[in-house]
Amino acid sequence: MFDVTFQFENGQTTVISAQEGANLLELARSANVAIDAPCSGNGSCGKCRVKLLSGQLDCLPTSHITAEEAADGWRLACGSRICGDVTVLVPDIASAYQSRMKTADLSSGQEIAIFEKLMADVSAAGVSFANDFVQVELTLDAPTLDDTMPDNERITRALEAALGVETVAIPYDCLVRLAQVLREGNFRVWAAGERKGNTFRLLDVSAGQAPLCAAAIDIGTTTVSAVLTDLKTGRLLAKASSGNGQIRYGADVINRIIEQGKPGGRRKLQKAVIDETLNPLLRAMCRSAGVGKERIFRLCVASNTTMNHLLLGVDADPVRMEPYIPSFFRWQGCKARDLHLAAHGDADVVIAPNIGSYVGGDITAGVLASLLWDRDEFTLFIDLGTNGELVFGNRDFMMSCACSAGPAFEGGDISCGMRATDGAIEAVTIDRDTMEPTFRIIGEAGQKPVGLCGSGIIDLISELFRCGIISPKGQFQREGARVRRDAHGTGRYVLATEDESATGREVSLDEVDIDSFIRAKGAIFSAIDTMLRSLDMDVTVLDHVLVAGGIGSGINMKNAVNIGMFPDIDLEKFEYIGNSSLAGAYAMALSPSAEEKTYGLAANMTYLELSTNPGYMDAFVAACFLPHTNTALFPNSHPEA
Amino acid sequence: MFDVTFQFENGQTTVISAQEGANLLELARSANVAIDAPCSGNGSCGKCRVKLLSGQLDCLPTSHITAEEAADGWRLACGSRICGDVTVLVPDIASAYQSRMKTADLSSGQEIAIFEKLMADVSAAGVSFANDFVQVELTLDAPTLDDTMPDNERITRALEAALGVETVAIPYDCLVRLAQVLREGNFRVWAAGERKGNTFRLLDVSAGQAPLCAAAIDIGTTTVSAVLTDLKTGRLLAKASSGNGQIRYGADVINRIIEQGKPGGRRKLQKAVIDETLNPLLRAMCRSAGVGKERIFRLCVASNTTMNHLLLGVDADPVRMEPYIPSFFRWQGCKARDLHLAAHGDADVVIAPNIGSYVGGDITAGVLASLLWDRDEFTLFIDLGTNGELVFGNRDFMMSCACSAGPAFEGGDISCGMRATDGAIEAVTIDRDTMEPTFRIIGEAGQKPVGLCGSGIIDLISELFRCGIISPKGQFQREGARVRRDAHGTGRYVLATEDESATGREVSLDEVDIDSFIRAKGAIFSAIDTMLRSLDMDVTVLDHVLVAGGIGSGINMKNAVNIGMFPDIDLEKFEYIGNSSLAGAYAMALSPSAEEKTYGLAANMTYLELSTNPGYMDAFVAACFLPHTNTALFPNSHPEA
Repeated sequence: MFDVTFQFENGQTTVISAQEGANLLELARSANVAIDAPCSGNGSCGKCRVKLLSGQLDCLPTSHITAEEAADGWRLACGSRICGDVTVLVPDIASAYQSRMKTADLSSGQEIAIFEKLMADVSAAGVSFANDFVQVELTLDAPTLDDTMPDNERITRALEAALGVETVAIPYDCLVRLAQVLREGNFRVWAAGERKGNTFRLLDVSAGQAPLCAAAIDIGTTTVSAVLTDLKTGRLLAKASSGNGQIRYGADVINRIIEQGKPGGRRKLQKAVIDETLNPLLRAMCRSAGVGKERIFRLCVASNTTMNHLLLGVDADPVRMEPYIPSFFRWQGCKARDLHLAAHGDADVVIAPNIGSYVGGDITAGVLASLLWDRDEFTLFIDLGTNGELVFGNRDFMMSCACSAGPAFEGGDISCGMRATDGAIEAVTIDRDTMEPTFRIIGEAGQKPVGLCGSGIIDLISELFRCGIISPKGQFQREGARVRRDAHGTGRYVLATEDESATGREVSLDEVDIDSFIRAKGAIFSAIDTMLRSLDMDVTVLDHVLVAGGIGSGINMKNAVNIGMFPDIDLEKFEYIGNSSLAGAYAMALSPSAEEKTYGLAANMTYLELSTNPGYMDAFVAACFLPHTNTALFPNSHPEA
Repeated sequence: MFDVTFQFENGQTTVISAQEGANLLELARSANVAIDAPCSGNGSCGKCRVKLLSGQLDCLPTSHITAEEAADGWRLACGSRICGDVTVLVPDIASAYQSRMKTADLSSGQEIAIFEKLMADVSAAGVSFANDFVQVELTLDAPTLDDTMPDNERITRALEAALGVETVAIPYDCLVRLAQVLREGNFRVWAAGERKGNTFRLLDVSAGQAPLCAAAIDIGTTTVSAVLTDLKTGRLLAKASSGNGQIRYGADVINRIIEQGKPGGRRKLQKAVIDETLNPLLRAMCRSAGVGKERIFRLCVASNTTMNHLLLGVDADPVRMEPYIPSFFRWQGCKARDLHLAAHGDADVVIAPNIGSYVGGDITAGVLASLLWDRDEFTLFIDLGTNGELVFGNRDFMMSCACSAGPAFEGGDISCGMRATDGAIEAVTIDRDTMEPTFRIIGEAGQKPVGLCGSGIIDLISELFRCGIISPKGQFQREGARVRRDAHGTGRYVLATEDESATGREVSLDEVDIDSFIRAKGAIFSAIDTMLRSLDMDVTVLDHVLVAGGIGSGINMKNAVNIGMFPDIDLEKFEYIGNSSLAGAYAMALSPSAEEKTYGLAANMTYLELSTNPGYMDAFVAACFLPHTNTALFPNSHPEA
């Protein structure tokens, strides 16, 4: 056995014993050391870099590390095996993709207003936000030798009288605590629960009054976002987000499905999302709002089909294997207790419905929030997550499809890509003459760049193309101080040199990255094209294009059109609507009517399978250029003269 | 830290580290070493004897250990503190009271016939044994690219068609396993569940067929008994019993309530009965019947009020403290999952209803099985458990009361007392002239005596009185080889000398034991007397006396009358009905009608509080003689001339 020491940039260390031949990335996983491995450790992504500080590692050759970098000690964790005591540096960048939890500051009222407006809009479209949760103060007669009614009957009688219900259901957890709470409160208590017809389901009895809460969670493949809200008023109480803890088992759904299929894999993936991601988020929100977790009486989760299968610990393998059968579209529901969620054990967990293996609850919830179903005009809804999903239609019909754009929009598969979090370059312009960049970085003033998030990559590629620095194929065709080439002649554009970056590693975009991104944007455009064609329509019919997703704080629509990702139509028609999946989950968490509405929307959505569509492959190949092989489709996009 | 070694008679040892000053009994508890402490370790019962083999213990003085015994190394664990490395012998007798689990041999068909007769009798009285559990074989269409219905909808459609129901509820645990089971079974599977009106609640999907089971459990303060039965036929599949694991926290309910009130106590007591008692019993029964625990779809527990509060982890302190308020009489039910019971997680756990703090579900279930409610004649039902509970009435009315007889009937509070298990003397006769005893021992041929169980004590006291060896006050008045006295002059009758016993310790009954037992029998008789008087009746109205409880394989009614425990009426009127609490639980586990019937019985039972009844104390004092101060009440009981 050898000692393996992981040293972090903040000076902390984690030491683990390992056998000779053990894989360094797997050791890191077992020791809960966060090292991103979007490719799940097969050597293809090159993200899992660590730096050898002392000792030796037995390493596979890799093209991701230059000879110079290797001499400096850089290694890929996934290709390294233990051959003695060793100490490695885990750079902060190693877990930039897998970002830390962040609780939003609600003090400006801006976030609160967003959700207030959503509630108003959805209500105006006819979906009530009323629910049947109730809180009531009860003053019971204290028992005496002449009045020896047991506690449960005593509170049942009082609730029947106070609420006019015929029966009261007292779940196990509630009854277990009843004797103590009644006596602590001197038989004067607050009861909270849900009225269902003539029955009242008691959920909590407490000596004092406290808010009744709901939680909404958007589980993305990369990022998880959540809000805590007051069940009665809909007011936002807290908001938080973090990376999905499953990311160390692969950046995309396919790698995670493979991982969950291994012995103990389902439990492992479920633990990664529940114990390491959702529960810390829920606890942080409760702390921030000053409420106990047992006051969360209802939860809604919106997520893609694979994510909700992995959350629930349901085998996702049939989702991946032909004929692609999920265990469920519409989940009948379970209790927070079943999933060990940090909430009231009897809280219902609502899952936004899937409509296929690759169009899941994130989309149905997103469509609810988008109000596409309430419009007369033809509207296209695009969700840029780790995959791209589209819904097209109006109040009369809806069609959906999914394209495997890959994780590029969230910074995956890109050498300096990262999530839209502190240190990410989110917007770029380039001076055509000097070729020098100007950019905006997420974070506090003075933040140095760490990498590029999706919106920054769109801007950068658009600007490189506009300035004639890259060709329609994405190859470098101008030379300059910012354009560099490696030993094989592969060009790259350097946004920040080693000295200018936050990490000591250059922030750049190379031809391999550009190629990845062009394939991603090509997948989106060809999906739009193919779906409209299948309806004998083209992009001219589009009245609205709603773009959702965690691609950055926004997206420069002009640039997205310029690179041929979105159709070249009036820019006024585009709208960035943010995280619509979370917004839909928020509505469903508060409102049984919104939940029912979403089931209805899901049932009415036609699913178009692109992978077997004969025209899709051709459309995709044609779209893998800047802006497109058919330039007539993009009259406004071309390099400046 | 010192090493404390517990050595057992079979040669095994358990070693635990302990700090100086640690209490030996508490160490034994923490190491799961079974040492009986009916008094919960306050030094009063003298049961927790261990023998010092090496090292020293720092011991409190005690009258329970003679100087001679002390010189041999005997100590009370509860009064011993650690002052160095030490090895003690834990004699088998130390856990005789807390007996090991025993699985019944059903091969003779005798046990099966008992429950068949019960089912026939209860059915004849109008309670149906039908239930809505169903098992059905399903052949589903395997999914294809043209038929991509998700698994849950696929099985739902099939169940709707097969059973003619409108909705199918699929609980979490079932859905989680669905994908795998369907594919393992090639979409040909067996589905089991419960029909509730137009809804079918799916509980299990499996590739093969297996029995649908129910479990019934009688949780006595001292002994726990259980049966496993086929839900559809009612046939007994297994039967088992063991000591209640809570016994190390006190022999009676009062000591256990005090113990559960300490920090962490509720969890500790709940664990002792569930993890250490019920789950091993359930698993042993499943093993014996060859079925998986997940095939137990319904459970019923019958137990006294304190036991069901402790089982459920509900604070029992208000049960003990004036005004004696339980958390519930009728429990709304919970799932096996809530209690971590070894059964299907979604199995309903039915709790036989309590009617007061001291008349619980063991009595209501017992009354159901006794069929008292179906008789025209006045019938008295007596349950001799750790406490004594009585129900008197017929099809028109029922009255119940409880008396704190203490644990004497189950061998508690008696120096050589033990449960009715291997080595227990269960029947005794004495030759009036020679004063020599003849006795019957539970166990295989050649079993030497270990102690006395309840029925043996009744016989022995009756015989000692009949032979004039003891006075009506229970004091020794004849001398002889079998009658010995200690240094204080306290007399005892020796049934087995050190050489004749199985343990090397004399089996005897002394004046202190006799006094304890006289108080116990006095409590029973005075309760009968007081209850009948409160109705302006006396014992002449009794047509039937049904005696239930685990007092032994039976009870010599004549002897019980002779000592003044039961009224002196025609012996033909007495019937020993065994464990009626378990029998009632069996009926309730199988039949929702029996469950409803029991709730009805409970609601109709009047409770007579004896402790505040002005006549009870006088009646009790008058009954604390052999057979009674008023000998006219017992014309057939007197010493032989």
